[in-house]
Amino acid sequence: MSKPFKRILLTGAAGGLGRLLRDRIKPWADIVRLSDLADVGPAGEGEEVVQCDLADKAAVLALMEGVDAVLHFGGISTEAPFDAIMQANILGMANLYEAIHKCGVKRVVFASSNHTMGFYKTTDLVDADMPPRPDGMYGVSKVFGESLSRYYYDRFGIETVCLRIGSCFPEPANPRMMITYLSADDLVEALRCSLFAARVGHTIAFGVSDNKAKWWDDRKSRHLGFVAKDSSTQFEHKFPDSGNYAPADDITITFQGGGFLLTGPQYN
Amino acid sequence: MSKPFKRILLTGAAGGLGRLLRDRIKPWADIVRLSDLADVGPAGEGEEVVQCDLADKAAVLALMEGVDAVLHFGGISTEAPFDAIMQANILGMANLYEAIHKCGVKRVVFASSNHTMGFYKTTDLVDADMPPRPDGMYGVSKVFGESLSRYYYDRFGIETVCLRIGSCFPEPANPRMMITYLSADDLVEALRCSLFAARVGHTIAFGVSDNKAKWWDDRKSRHLGFVAKDSSTQFEHKFPDSGNYAPADDITITFQGGGFLLTGPQYN
Amino acid sequence: MSKPFKRILLTGAAGGLGRLLRDRIKPWADIVRLSDLADVGPAGEGEEVVQCDLADKAAVLALMEGVDAVLHFGGISTEAPFDAIMQANILGMANLYEAIHKCGVKRVVFASSNHTMGFYKTTDLVDADMPPRPDGMYGVSKVFGESLSRYYYDRFGIETVCLRIGSCFPEPANPRMMITYLSADDLVEALRCSLFAARVGHTIAFGVSDNKAKWWDDRKSRHLGFVAKDSSTQFEHKFPDSGNYAPADDITITFQGGGFLLTGPQYN
Amino acid sequence: MSKPFKRILLTGAAGGLGRLLRDRIKPWADIVRLSDLADVGPAGEGEEVVQCDLADKAAVLALMEGVDAVLHFGGISTEAPFDAIMQANILGMANLYEAIHKCGVKRVVFASSNHTMGFYKTTDLVDADMPPRPDGMYGVSKVFGESLSRYYYDRFGIETVCLRIGSCFPEPANPRMMITYLSADDLVEALRCSLFAARVGHTIAFGVSDNKAKWWDDRKSRHLGFVAKDSSTQFEHKFPDSGNYAPADDITITFQGGGFLLTGPQYN
Amino acid sequence: MSKPFKRILLTGAAGGLGRLLRDRIKPWADIVRLSDLADVGPAGEGEEVVQCDLADKAAVLALMEGVDAVLHFGGISTEAPFDAIMQANILGMANLYEAIHKCGVKRVVFASSNHTMGFYKTTDLVDADMPPRPDGMYGVSKVFGESLSRYYYDRFGIETVCLRIGSCFPEPANPRMMITYLSADDLVEALRCSLFAARVGHTIAFGVSDNKAKWWDDRKSRHLGFVAKDSSTQFEHKFPDSGNYAPADDITITFQGGGFLLTGPQYN
Amino acid sequence: MSKPFKRILLTGAAGGLGRLLRDRIKPWADIVRLSDLADVGPAGEGEEVVQCDLADKAAVLALMEGVDAVLHFGGISTEAPFDAIMQANILGMANLYEAIHKCGVKRVVFASSNHTMGFYKTTDLVDADMPPRPDGMYGVSKVFGESLSRYYYDRFGIETVCLRIGSCFPEPANPRMMITYLSADDLVEALRCSLFAARVGHTIAFGVSDNKAKWWDDRKSRHLGFVAKDSSTQFEHKFPDSGNYAPADDITITFQGGGFLLTGPQYN
Repeated sequence: MSKPFKRILLTGAAGGLGRLLRDRIKPWADIVRLSDLADVGPAGEGEEVVQCDLADKAAVLALMEGVDAVLHFGGISTEAPFDAIMQANILGMANLYEAIHKCGVKRVVFASSNHTMGFYKTTDLVDADMPPRPDGMYGVSKVFGESLSRYYYDRFGIETVCLRIGSCFPEPANPRMMITYLSADDLVEALRCSLFAARVGHTIAFGVSDNKAKWWDDRKSRHLGFVAKDSSTQFEHKFPDSGNYAPADDITITFQGGGFLLTGPQYN
Repeated sequence: MSKPFKRILLTGAAGGLGRLLRDRIKPWADIVRLSDLADVGPAGEGEEVVQCDLADKAAVLALMEGVDAVLHFGGISTEAPFDAIMQANILGMANLYEAIHKCGVKRVVFASSNHTMGFYKTTDLVDADMPPRPDGMYGVSKVFGESLSRYYYDRFGIETVCLRIGSCFPEPANPRMMITYLSADDLVEALRCSLFAARVGHTIAFGVSDNKAKWWDDRKSRHLGFVAKDSSTQFEHKFPDSGNYAPADDITITFQGGGFLLTGPQYN
Repeated sequence: MSKPFKRILLTGAAGGLGRLLRDRIKPWADIVRLSDLADVGPAGEGEEVVQCDLADKAAVLALMEGVDAVLHFGGISTEAPFDAIMQANILGMANLYEAIHKCGVKRVVFASSNHTMGFYKTTDLVDADMPPRPDGMYGVSKVFGESLSRYYYDRFGIETVCLRIGSCFPEPANPRMMITYLSADDLVEALRCSLFAARVGHTIAFGVSDNKAKWWDDRKSRHLGFVAKDSSTQFEHKFPDSGNYAPADDITITFQGGGFLLTGPQYN
Repeated sequence: MSKPFKRILLTGAAGGLGRLLRDRIKPWADIVRLSDLADVGPAGEGEEVVQCDLADKAAVLALMEGVDAVLHFGGISTEAPFDAIMQANILGMANLYEAIHKCGVKRVVFASSNHTMGFYKTTDLVDADMPPRPDGMYGVSKVFGESLSRYYYDRFGIETVCLRIGSCFPEPANPRMMITYLSADDLVEALRCSLFAARVGHTIAFGVSDNKAKWWDDRKSRHLGFVAKDSSTQFEHKFPDSGNYAPADDITITFQGGGFLLTGPQYN
Repeated sequence: MSKPFKRILLTGAAGGLGRLLRDRIKPWADIVRLSDLADVGPAGEGEEVVQCDLADKAAVLALMEGVDAVLHFGGISTEAPFDAIMQANILGMANLYEAIHKCGVKRVVFASSNHTMGFYKTTDLVDADMPPRPDGMYGVSKVFGESLSRYYYDRFGIETVCLRIGSCFPEPANPRMMITYLSADDLVEALRCSLFAARVGHTIAFGVSDNKAKWWDDRKSRHLGFVAKDSSTQFEHKFPDSGNYAPADDITITFQGGGFLLTGPQYN
Repeated sequence: MSKPFKRILLTGAAGGLGRLLRDRIKPWADIVRLSDLADVGPAGEGEEVVQCDLADKAAVLALMEGVDAVLHFGGISTEAPFDAIMQANILGMANLYEAIHKCGVKRVVFASSNHTMGFYKTTDLVDADMPPRPDGMYGVSKVFGESLSRYYYDRFGIETVCLRIGSCFPEPANPRMMITYLSADDLVEALRCSLFAARVGHTIAFGVSDNKAKWWDDRKSRHLGFVAKDSSTQFEHKFPDSGNYAPADDITITFQGGGFLLTGPQYN
């Protein structure tokens, strides 16, 4: 029996989330095309491997051939010197959507980030229509990507879900991640909903599990049908209650971006 | 022991929802008065049957005598020639509220429709205060009904819950109904809450089960106490994931109204 | 030199505003077609006169032939028995838009009314996106018209400006009209803007002069370019300051609808 | 092993909620300092007892010494003559925050009340940013407290959670309390979250269990991580459905404040 | 010819604004009753002078006898020790409204203050429905007054305009006052509108001239009909452009409250 | 007498707006440093000329030395191949703010564009907090700039006014520009306000004259004190009323971006 898509492209396949997704997305397409600048290992069954620098426009155009849908997890996923971010996340994004447009791809999931909003306070509730408040050059590059994909939807009808991913790790490494935790299963379900909803237009959604504390109000993306099943509550014992409040001038506790707030931008 | 009401009037008792409700509402009133233009069969125990054309003012006034509360499911419930809609849903509604006013009825549930809002996009989240966007003459007639009942509340204090009913069928017949599905049990519970809440003023509520994907934000009617128990999730297997997106110009996928978008208005 | 339109249809030409507009709109069209149920007198130069009952579908269709744009001032403009309102303002409106659709008319100005909002308080500020609060069956019929024209725009792209007209009289007759006053010149300018703006989509605008006290926030229709030139301030001397407040239960002072609040609905 | 805080101050320890909390908060601090104007009985292990009139500035300053965090349940918790409310809830509150400021306390939970909002309608949904609508002098004094604590946060960085407590009784005593019910366990959890969240700034939160009917939208405080576990649903059988609606002029049913609406202010 | 009111009470008649108003309000009432704790000099024609401590309930009740409307400018109008503020602005306010209620006064203008909102940023736009952010105990006491008068309106129908007065001085003394400047004429006109508007309910309005830079969005009180005629623009030459920006930690420039931000609360 | 600033940097000095501003800004600084990639001609009195490629980080750092404030009009101001836009508007912007940060510049005016919002409809009213809807790669690059400058404000306190400039030409060249027209005098005044307001934080403002028709609601930047003096009304005669509506599929009339909507992105 044929699968929903003929070919899905997964960029950033060598990254942390890329490796996590590689097997999980196989049910969705006859062929999963895996791409990264780094080595993703040999192609398995139902896989194609294409090493590709997103900053190389011709290579990206070739990469897109025959693709039905794109899961864009490529690029740089942390604070870095701006030149690198610009090549990977800005030029790479522009090349990607040019290729998507030329090849007639209809649906994209863009791995955006909560760091587009990292300068909201930890006492704020953020939703998809509030102005961006990036917490570094990485976050700024993700705002660029959301804005670029908005344009491609408004002008050419290319549908994108910008998934502002929280903290997708096996378990929370600090109290902040109790709030931003996204389980692997919930990530996969969010992607599944984003790919198979009948219409998504240009949707900005928050990729986060059903944790007790919330910073993000995701009701504007409930048309996707994503309902988180997991919660960070199971890890509560790791972070016992404490009355040792962080100092008032510790911006990593005051603003949502956490540690990212201190790193960027990196001047060289 | 006496029941909460002495007499409830159910209009549209011969229709699909009317037949579904006939037995379910018996615990709420000593007598259920069943009305329709069509034949509703013989009156059972605790029932009264009154055949009535809502466009007949005198008949409607007679129909209302001795009634404590009204469940108004009468009228035309789909796209139709405007003359018919006008008689049933506009003149009928005006006659009904005139009679309600004259007879001192205090509480009404009006079966409104999601088609009052069918021209919002399938990527929009609609709430009770947003401007109407009807998807046909049927939807326009329901906006009329909501507006008329609002007036009767503001002017005369007659309390109405306008229940914008989703798709109340045994099971979803298409992917759209996975989002709009309202189970029979949830409908009955929504009616129960609407009738027995201490105050409802003029409330616009969305009658929909707890489906995963949502188009409607119903938090502004949580004073009713209605909490859906069912979900369309049990029918997911009927609609497997598919990457065959509808064409961009298929308005039935782009807007919430679905198939209704194509039918009305009907010129004859 | 030819005028902007070939033929404008003015309905309600025998009414108060119709008579006021008859000469003022001549510069906009080679021919002004004047219509009313009542007698509008003989056609002058550049005029056509068509007596027409809006409730007569065939007549309305004939009336629309060759028309470029419509100024719809026809129908009943005050509280009246519902049957009459239904024929004129509901069936008439449905007939009108059916004809507009069939004849390919592209632009309509619908004389709506502040009585769509008459049950907002006199201390409220109302804008175009707030839910309707009609103050009688007349107001309800105008909500119907706004909703119907919205549908025709969403479905067929027919552009309408719903102009919620305040009180267009030579001078304010009571203190309420100091707030709702619309001068004849300002009305004409609002119509001109509504007809000649490059795009109006479906716009709800408030037709009111630049009076000191305001109930209506019209900023959402500033794309029309209408800027009122007149003000009721010139009539201030007619209504000297008074400390004789109306009783608390005088709803005509508490709600925006004024005297209309007491008249409707009229049961016969 | 040491507890999160060295010393928590619980004011109002002799009151209904104070007695309920006395044992429940022990796990949070090495020492719980109990204070009231009334007798709280002898100090148990890990307890200190300080009788204190909050209107006595010097006494309050002494009371605060060595305190890490404050649970302020003191003062008058019902309608009363204004002189008494002023001494306890206004002067008391001012003295308390002066002492908090001088002693360097960093975190406070202030037992505010739904009566800050009691003049919203029972069909309204209230959230933390809506203007106060107190239902008596008691409610006005709580608005004062919220405003005062806001100032101390904006100016001095003292973090306060204003917990607008619903009806914290063993079980609902009337239908209104089915909506406002807060279980003891949920109260304790709300306090725990308020004390141990990394940052709370100045948060206004609603202390209410997960009841079916809701008047309060608490999403703006979800950064606290409070998720109610209990519900009034278990008490539904106590209040069977009834069609005997309260008269339209019964303000205790029309507005959220219930019985409080009728009591204050008390002139003597 | 008789004047609009028989007797207006002006409290705070010995204060800066009180003295300014004394003559200006004479056209509105046959008798102006002047009250203050301080000496207001001898009564002129059409004047009554009553020395009164607002903290003295019996005296306030006597003061109110025969009064139609109140302009409440009494109390403390700057940062001061809390005991003094409490007596004058809190107890005084409670006494005043108790007397207003008992004597059947129907309309009050309460001189509130921009310092209810002084902790909004100088880059914020504040409107009447935003949560209070007082900048000191004086501001907190004004929030109390607004809240108290709201209660008296919701419960007893006593109409109050809370006029958040900017800086009413002959001319701006610093750049901040270029934004907050209220001319004497504009103050008088705002009072006139507040007294003579047919209904004001409970209105919060901003008393500020038509200055170029604005912090306050007053559109929600346009039902009053107040339109400022003056502007601080005439004083521009006093404050030439300067690139010497205040240091980032100068809160008097960052927040709207200006110098008040540094003064309160005053502990003694 | 010394001028407000010692040295202002004007980038893009060879461009249309740069040339217009060159003389107009002289009163604001002892020295105006003029920069462009193109030739700006010889330095006049009180001028310094520095040819500089904004994509050259070292050159930009040198350019910034000794600068108090920046008027950033540099970069590409129309649709162009993305490589060029990226070098000038993205890398250039990053370099600029890195230099601004390193050199301690406190105030920047960034010439943003209405094309950040070009995909809002011509019937929409846009304000500064609404999500960006760029109409091409040029617009996307301006969103990047707004987002980058927001970050530099949130993280480092560098104040920027993003001025979304309308159409700053001697006169409107088409009907769209009747709405977007910004006179040279109004541009200069907007810059003056942006430079000399005591605090601007990160403000997004719309640079447009007081034209009759408006798409942009600029009230959230009224703290700047900018009040337009000019209007496009003087050019009304150039664009007589016309009933020749553009076809429904002409996106340049449907969306605010006008002709830009058709040009980008440019693939090479």
